[in-house]
Amino acid sequence: MKSSLKKSLFIKSMLVLLLLVNTVFASDLLPSWNDTAPKQAIIAFVEEATKPDSRNFVPVEERIATFDNDGTLWTEQPLPFQCYFLFDRIKALAPQHPEWISKDPFASVLKGDMNSALAGGMSALTEMIIATQSGITTDEFEKLVTDWITTARHPQTKRLFTEMVFQPMLELLAYLRANGFKTYLVSGGSSDFMRPWVEKVYGIVPEQVIGSSLKTNFELRNGIPVILSMPELNFISAGNGKPVGIQSHVGRRQIASFGNSDNDLPMMQWTAAGSKARFCLYVHHTDAEREWAYDRKSSDPFDKGLDEALAKGWTVVDMKNDWKIIYPFEKK
Amino acid sequence: MKSSLKKSLFIKSMLVLLLLVNTVFASDLLPSWNDTAPKQAIIAFVEEATKPDSRNFVPVEERIATFDNDGTLWTEQPLPFQCYFLFDRIKALAPQHPEWISKDPFASVLKGDMNSALAGGMSALTEMIIATQSGITTDEFEKLVTDWITTARHPQTKRLFTEMVFQPMLELLAYLRANGFKTYLVSGGSSDFMRPWVEKVYGIVPEQVIGSSLKTNFELRNGIPVILSMPELNFISAGNGKPVGIQSHVGRRQIASFGNSDNDLPMMQWTAAGSKARFCLYVHHTDAEREWAYDRKSSDPFDKGLDEALAKGWTVVDMKNDWKIIYPFEKK
Repeated sequence: MKSSLKKSLFIKSMLVLLLLVNTVFASDLLPSWNDTAPKQAIIAFVEEATKPDSRNFVPVEERIATFDNDGTLWTEQPLPFQCYFLFDRIKALAPQHPEWISKDPFASVLKGDMNSALAGGMSALTEMIIATQSGITTDEFEKLVTDWITTARHPQTKRLFTEMVFQPMLELLAYLRANGFKTYLVSGGSSDFMRPWVEKVYGIVPEQVIGSSLKTNFELRNGIPVILSMPELNFISAGNGKPVGIQSHVGRRQIASFGNSDNDLPMMQWTAAGSKARFCLYVHHTDAEREWAYDRKSSDPFDKGLDEALAKGWTVVDMKNDWKIIYPFEKK
Repeated sequence: MKSSLKKSLFIKSMLVLLLLVNTVFASDLLPSWNDTAPKQAIIAFVEEATKPDSRNFVPVEERIATFDNDGTLWTEQPLPFQCYFLFDRIKALAPQHPEWISKDPFASVLKGDMNSALAGGMSALTEMIIATQSGITTDEFEKLVTDWITTARHPQTKRLFTEMVFQPMLELLAYLRANGFKTYLVSGGSSDFMRPWVEKVYGIVPEQVIGSSLKTNFELRNGIPVILSMPELNFISAGNGKPVGIQSHVGRRQIASFGNSDNDLPMMQWTAAGSKARFCLYVHHTDAEREWAYDRKSSDPFDKGLDEALAKGWTVVDMKNDWKIIYPFEKK
């Protein structure tokens, strides 16, 4: 068979298969969503973006969707989960740092007073991150995270943290990918903290993770190359840093964004200001029984973002009413 | 039809199609390569990495290949092509900067003495980049690059710069992608200078471009969000910066790297030190008639890299003997 003929047959078969896939996925890929406005808005957006005869059709290579992590893809209460990793690292390293006993924020962590440890805000957090995540190679850090994430448990539910992901959002990620979207994680957390496990848990590959980071250096140690993290912040992927990180990493504007706080508002604004099909969705934590209920007055508030979402008609998920289940372990 | 049955049919059809594609591509995707050692080494590596029963098999999601740009995918003589863009921007902006007439490196550029302009090395280059690429939004800069790259011509060949790409390397990029590889551009040039055209020219999507950059800020201008570049270096993607940029951007180690100078050596070392199938290839500029001939004593030398390639048995392409044609316009 001539190779041009083979290629043309290949392309035609692919198109037929893509159509087949589309019909499969639209009908049954969001089973944990109630048939309320958010689910309808998601499906309407995906059809608008992907139907070739749509006025707002988006070519497949431009279908970029960006997701916040804490509070959007998994629970962030009573504290964002990376904090527990930090605290556990501080406890593990304390014997090598006798000075921590009397030096905050470390002293508070060692006393188990996590709220005092975090009272210093971003500067205390940065100090703890640098103390526990620098001076270590990328390979060593990956192993620490992998060991922790497979064993550490939530202080209240006693579940693995990776069990506390939102089942409806897992379905949404898969639904978008089935429609040709690239799904990116854009989180204030450290990219090195997320990359070791998000592929397995969210189906998001490491190269589609945008997070905060320390500076790193490349060096040869006895002829063996290593990449070593330095005690200096490189990038903070929060607030205005989110669209900045997306532009720097992806180089084109996302057409859909998903978040849950004011920290995600610049990412939403950047999305909404583009042309063709657009979609912004906020997860509103309204379910004190099955998860947590908080918004305008939380430590990471959903306040200006909620106002702007309501004013601009963005989609707001009411967790209590729009989601049949919250976590995968509720599945029957 | 039940959806699980549909999915299983879909997966089976995909597998058949993938086999079909493999047989097509292995036979005819490298037509501009002579049947010498480098072509044989490339094919042997790809088979080793992709055959499921191979001892060094690499799963598709780990098939990351990184390519230098200047001198590896297109010509870099007499100067790396981004320099001509810089010079043209300086000439265009000169009326707004009367002080440039007597201030180097700008004065030398305006006199047409490009070698003097670049005599100040990295600090002169940085000064010119900041003067011409900062204070401008990403959308505006993209338009400037797109206008320039479609009209500016090489000072000696009078061809569009994008005509001076290496045909054998275009074939190699396509061959790797056909075998499930993600192809990344890892260049000392600005990512914002490359992203507007590399998808069309190399088939490399913007999110797979890792380059040097200025810091950027997100802001609202009369309610419209913009991303604005600042007069401050963010990252230099050269030398040790290459593996650092790859780790930061991709989050996993590439299995194949392609370069042409000592600037690419850390990227090669990082590649070679990983496990499973590995491949490092250097392009050696040996063809003064069809392109240029230079190595150990050029301004961006291929010296330590050449020694290490020879010592470690990496693949070195002798352009004169291994490539049937250099540029696409030589095709009959």
